[in-house]
Amino acid sequence: MKKHNFYAGPSILPEFTIKNTAEAVVNFAGTGLSVMEVSHRSKEFVEVMEKAIALVKELLDVPAGYEVIFVGGGASTQFCTVPYNLLNKKAAYLNTGSWAAKAQKEAKLFGEVIEVASSKDKNYNYIPKGFEVPADVDYLHITSNNTIYGTEIKTDLDLGVRLVADMSSDIFSRPVDISKYDIIYAGAQKNLAPSGVTVAIVKEDALGKVDRAIPTMLDYRTHIDKGSMFNTPPVLPVYAALQTLTWLKDNGGIQAMNKKNVEKATLLYDEIDNNKFFKATVEAQEDRSIMNICFVMNEEYAELEKDFMELATSKGCVGIKGHRSVGGFRASTYNALPRESVEVLVAAMKEFASKH
Amino acid sequence: MKKHNFYAGPSILPEFTIKNTAEAVVNFAGTGLSVMEVSHRSKEFVEVMEKAIALVKELLDVPAGYEVIFVGGGASTQFCTVPYNLLNKKAAYLNTGSWAAKAQKEAKLFGEVIEVASSKDKNYNYIPKGFEVPADVDYLHITSNNTIYGTEIKTDLDLGVRLVADMSSDIFSRPVDISKYDIIYAGAQKNLAPSGVTVAIVKEDALGKVDRAIPTMLDYRTHIDKGSMFNTPPVLPVYAALQTLTWLKDNGGIQAMNKKNVEKATLLYDEIDNNKFFKATVEAQEDRSIMNICFVMNEEYAELEKDFMELATSKGCVGIKGHRSVGGFRASTYNALPRESVEVLVAAMKEFASKH
Repeated sequence: MKKHNFYAGPSILPEFTIKNTAEAVVNFAGTGLSVMEVSHRSKEFVEVMEKAIALVKELLDVPAGYEVIFVGGGASTQFCTVPYNLLNKKAAYLNTGSWAAKAQKEAKLFGEVIEVASSKDKNYNYIPKGFEVPADVDYLHITSNNTIYGTEIKTDLDLGVRLVADMSSDIFSRPVDISKYDIIYAGAQKNLAPSGVTVAIVKEDALGKVDRAIPTMLDYRTHIDKGSMFNTPPVLPVYAALQTLTWLKDNGGIQAMNKKNVEKATLLYDEIDNNKFFKATVEAQEDRSIMNICFVMNEEYAELEKDFMELATSKGCVGIKGHRSVGGFRASTYNALPRESVEVLVAAMKEFASKH
Repeated sequence: MKKHNFYAGPSILPEFTIKNTAEAVVNFAGTGLSVMEVSHRSKEFVEVMEKAIALVKELLDVPAGYEVIFVGGGASTQFCTVPYNLLNKKAAYLNTGSWAAKAQKEAKLFGEVIEVASSKDKNYNYIPKGFEVPADVDYLHITSNNTIYGTEIKTDLDLGVRLVADMSSDIFSRPVDISKYDIIYAGAQKNLAPSGVTVAIVKEDALGKVDRAIPTMLDYRTHIDKGSMFNTPPVLPVYAALQTLTWLKDNGGIQAMNKKNVEKATLLYDEIDNNKFFKATVEAQEDRSIMNICFVMNEEYAELEKDFMELATSKGCVGIKGHRSVGGFRASTYNALPRESVEVLVAAMKEFASKH
C-alpha cells in the first residue's frame, strides 16, 4: 500500500530527490563511484555545491550583500552560532515554542537576553502580537514556524532591528523578503534534504561586529570565505538538496509551491473545523501553520483517539501522531507531500465521522 | 572499467555499505519510505542508532566508563569542542600536520597551549619522538594519522596525562587500547560512512571538570545523556555507518582488517622503495601511515610525474594526486580498498619502470 508520509521531520522528500539520490549512491555523475565515496574536491561535487548555492539564491531571490552557505550538523548548533557572531550586549527573543526557547537559552551564554513576548501561557498555541522590541538590541530572533505547536509567522516582520529567523520547517514553502532578515537558517530535513546539513542565508554586513574570538567552525565568515568548503561538507545531503532545489525550480518555484501548500492546508483545516470529532489546536487563522497542522479529538470524543489513529494508519498515513507536548495528531504537509495524501487523510476523517 | 578509489576522503566504502544504503534510500527497513524521510524517532531508526553505538563499542572493545556518540558535522568542529569540554588552564598539542595545527589554533581560544613538538621543519614527514609533556596539562592532543603527509602514530602513547586523539583517518584500521585515551574523535568519511557525521568515544570521568558554560550542542554530556538523539542526527550517514560496522564485524573485526591493511601498505611501500622512479616522502618505517601512502617521483625523473598520472588513470586509479602541500602522489588504502586495487597501482608502477 502506498504510504502517506506526514512525519514532522525528517520528512517527505520529492520522488525526484529520492530517485536521483538512490542512483548517485551507486554511480555519481558518471564517475563510476558512489556519491558517498567521492572527494568533496572532485570537480563533480564542486559543481554540485556551486549549483545548490546558486539555486537557493535564485529561488529565494536573495539580494546582493547576502551569502548562502551549507554547514554540517543541524539547526540546534545555530542556536549558539547566531549569538557567537552577532550578540554584543543584548538580544531579543520571541518565545513561540520549545525550539525558540532552546535558541534563547543558548544566547544567554553570550549576553543579555530579552524575551519580548511568549505564548507559553497557552501551550504555544498562538503567535504573540503587538510586542515591542527595544531599539538597542543587537537583533531579534524568531522561529518562523513552530513544528511542534503548528503555529507560523507568515509575514516578514519589520520592527526596526536586525532580524534573525530559524526557518527550519517553513523555508522554501512561501515567498520571503530576504532583505528584511540579517540571518535565516534552516536545518534541511523538512523541505530540502535528509538531515545532516543546515542552510544559512547571511547578510555580510551583520558580521564582524562583535569583539569576541569566534571558533573557526562557528564563524559564518569561515564558510562564506571558502564557499562552504572550508572543511568536508556533508556531501550526500548537499547532493540531495540540489535535487530538491532543482525539483522546486522545475515545478514553478516558491510561488507555485506556496499556492499548493495553502490549498493542502485549507483542505485539511476545513475538514478539522467542520468535523465534530476534531478540533484544531491553533484557533487564529493567521497563526495556523501551513506546514504542520495540529489537531486533537474534541473533548467529548477523547476516548476515540486510538480508533482514529488506527483508521488513518490503515489508509497508509504515517507519522500523524502529535508531539507528546500537544497530543492528538499532527499532519505535516511539507512541499513534497502530494495533495492526494491530504485527501486520503481527509477522507479518513469523513469516514470516521460517518461511522461514529 | 572498474575504478580503483584511492581518494583521501571522502573515500571508498565497502560495496556492502553502498548496496544497502542505495536500497534504504528507496525503502528503509520495510517501511516503504526512504531512509532520508523517516523520523529519527521512528522505532526503525532508533534501532539503527542503538546498534551502531553498540557495534563501535564491541569492535573497539570500549571499556566501561566510556560512551560512544554520533554527532552531526565533521571533526573540525571537535577542534573547539575538545577544549570547550576539557581545557581549564593549559593543554599540550603535538604538531604533526595541518589538521593538528588547526586543532591547536582553536584550543588557544580557551587557555594556554603548549606545542610539545613539531615536525613542521621537514614538511611534517616524520613523527616527533622523545618529547616531554608537562605533568600539569589538562590533556595532550594528537592527530594519530596525518592524511596529507602520510605519517601515523601506530602505538598508543602513555605519557602520564589525559590523551585526546583525532583518529579521523585511521579509526577502525588497527587495534587501539581505548583505556589509554580520554577522548577519541573521528570524522566518518574515511573508514566508516559518508561525510556529515563524527563518532566520538568519550571517557565520562574526563567531563565536568571545567568551569565555563558550554553551549548545549558542544557539550559532550548533551549527546551522551540523550543517546546521540538530543537533536536530529544525520540519519542517512548513521545508517551507512551501521552497514560498515556490520561489514567490519562480518569480516573478522579490527584485527583481521589491520592484517589486510598492513599487507596492502607493505605491498605498495615495497614497490615505492624498490622502483627507481619513485620515492616515499616518509622515510622512517615506524612513521609510515598504513592508510595514506605518499610518494613522489625521484628527482631525476620529476618531469615524468604527469606521464605516470596518465598511466595510473588509464588503469582506473582515481584520487592518487598528492595534496598540494606535498605534491606527487597519495594512495589512500582505507579498510574498504581491496588488495586488488593496490595490485593494479603496483603493476602500473612496474609497467612504468619497464617502459622508461
